[in-house]
Amino acid sequence: MAYQEYIPPVLKRALEVLTYIPTYGERSASRFVYNFLKLSPEERDEILKTLFELSRSARKCSECGLVSDTDPCRICSDTKRNKRFLCVVEESQDAYAIERLERYTGVYHVLGGRIAPLEGISAEDLNIEGLLRRIENYGVKEVILATNPNVEGEATANYILSLIKKRFPSVKVSRISHGLQFGSLIELADDLSLERSIENRR
Amino acid sequence: MAYQEYIPPVLKRALEVLTYIPTYGERSASRFVYNFLKLSPEERDEILKTLFELSRSARKCSECGLVSDTDPCRICSDTKRNKRFLCVVEESQDAYAIERLERYTGVYHVLGGRIAPLEGISAEDLNIEGLLRRIENYGVKEVILATNPNVEGEATANYILSLIKKRFPSVKVSRISHGLQFGSLIELADDLSLERSIENRR
Repeated sequence: MAYQEYIPPVLKRALEVLTYIPTYGERSASRFVYNFLKLSPEERDEILKTLFELSRSARKCSECGLVSDTDPCRICSDTKRNKRFLCVVEESQDAYAIERLERYTGVYHVLGGRIAPLEGISAEDLNIEGLLRRIENYGVKEVILATNPNVEGEATANYILSLIKKRFPSVKVSRISHGLQFGSLIELADDLSLERSIENRR
Repeated sequence: MAYQEYIPPVLKRALEVLTYIPTYGERSASRFVYNFLKLSPEERDEILKTLFELSRSARKCSECGLVSDTDPCRICSDTKRNKRFLCVVEESQDAYAIERLERYTGVYHVLGGRIAPLEGISAEDLNIEGLLRRIENYGVKEVILATNPNVEGEATANYILSLIKKRFPSVKVSRISHGLQFGSLIELADDLSLERSIENRR
């Protein structure tokens, strides 16, 4: 008899559909499913119920691209937020991380990724045109480029910087600083971070 | 206004409940939720529907501890399987991996983990008493110890071996072999695997 007969079809199916999730291969799918099954039925129900509610209510803000439960999102809908101050991020989770600081009073622009030629992601795949349109339509005065501090994030920031400088020369553009992360040790720091922390000394 | 107001409550809740899952910290929860939200509503529905069906039908086999959709599981229920030949594994996924070989005709015994003092897991937390009971009740003749080939898996195998040898001296006990994994290179192999592959030469 074939192997498929021994693994319950619904278990096999669960392992398959979990791989639909971006970045989820067989290993991640297996880790999710088997660990999920270790929970009590009540805990499993709570997780699935919450995910159903999330799935049902989730929408992407048509103004900034943030995943939220309203369109426009809660941030773009808040009249107290400064729409002339844009913080460009790669993904929604980056924006929510910055929100946790409870200091930023502008709005966000979610690119939906970053330029990564080795992964087949080009500028056209990102919400860059939308960014330029917003800068024009809202009379944006300042833009913070908060893409991740890595090779692709830097390249993406530089690309956007040059586009903005060309079309909107009076807009103030800044890049989040690089240096040593709090809690790290100088003797264990990578060369690039160490260099930058000295170059960018204040 | 507090940060909590900007992140949709249901999104925040989803990030929390995902951490109920064993081995899932904030990072894994975040990776799951945000990537899950990148799927279309149809794909999300399919995943959740499948997980609901899985959750509803999943049960642990009272004979061998395998996660299945019936109790006893499909393997223990199959009269063609040899119940006097036991393959001891740490978790259900290990058993299903061995099943994929379509060669093993015995039954399994799922310990539910392995002895790991540093993680607070002792022999009492595992289904070892159940194993000894099965060996006695079914007149088991052979046991394969298929815990993982690492420090804890080895310790667990040795512990079980000594218990079996003491109580059931006539039972044949074997341990899956160690050596070089197929597809690996000698020059890149770790010392222990290299040693074992030469020691256990045949």
